[in-house]
Amino acid sequence: MGSVNEGPWLDDDEQKAWRSYLLMKRTLETHLERHLQREFGLSSSDFEILVNLSESESGRMRAFELGRATQWEKSRLSHHLTRMEKRGLIRKEACESRYPEIAITADGLTAIKECAPVHAARVREFFVDVFGPERLGVLGEVSDEIVDTIGKHCETDCPLEPRP
Amino acid sequence: MGSVNEGPWLDDDEQKAWRSYLLMKRTLETHLERHLQREFGLSSSDFEILVNLSESESGRMRAFELGRATQWEKSRLSHHLTRMEKRGLIRKEACESRYPEIAITADGLTAIKECAPVHAARVREFFVDVFGPERLGVLGEVSDEIVDTIGKHCETDCPLEPRP
Repeated sequence: MGSVNEGPWLDDDEQKAWRSYLLMKRTLETHLERHLQREFGLSSSDFEILVNLSESESGRMRAFELGRATQWEKSRLSHHLTRMEKRGLIRKEACESRYPEIAITADGLTAIKECAPVHAARVREFFVDVFGPERLGVLGEVSDEIVDTIGKHCETDCPLEPRP
Repeated sequence: MGSVNEGPWLDDDEQKAWRSYLLMKRTLETHLERHLQREFGLSSSDFEILVNLSESESGRMRAFELGRATQWEKSRLSHHLTRMEKRGLIRKEACESRYPEIAITADGLTAIKECAPVHAARVREFFVDVFGPERLGVLGEVSDEIVDTIGKHCETDCPLEPRP
């Protein structure tokens, strides 16, 4: 119907690049997620929690720290951690403060150790190597600039939004 | 615990750029989605369906065409369309073939016409203008290359995966 695209907002080149980016983002996410699921029975959400825990000093983090690291909503995080605990990948541990700690289990550590190198090899093949070092460096820089720009905007204009 | 990062897979610069990209992607998605929701009561899934329908010739598409355009799983698409129909944004219409057509309603068209320029202005402010024309052009090119690379890989190695 064409009406939505008659605004003056994005010109053809900008629109094309933005849509190429959106398609790439979706295609890559879907591809990585399907392989994680098929080969290791892990969702990308499981993977993200396990990576964070396995990289922490002691293999354990407070729930609010995981929330900050993943930027998930509190209820999504809570539900997901409950499901991961039932599957034996993490354990909620009482600690002195009123916030429980989330610890990776031996099974969780085995799972992430098995899948992380395979996942990283896919990230290399389908992302890092296609970019090449120079273009990848530029992407990293612009990405940091975008996160800063949104962060500064949110300091003044969207107080309800968590800082990136 | 450090163990996950001892592999030889991504060097420090690659890892840094990949993580910057992941954080940017998440931060931008969250920011755009929250504003769509807060200002227009639309999720980014609603927005995606409405954009596709409003840009089609007649404001209507077959469900399988929407599935191809969005790359959503069939069940996710089906559930989402049912919810959107209940909210009066789209309508499922019987047609000659056994596949129903999905049509945007007058309310759906009003919703997308109201929110699309505001959304596009945000995409400009937080993505297009931060990249600038040159870096944005490069991103578009690399994005297309990545989609092609995954597509070629899937022709031979993952027959179950829909083509990007």
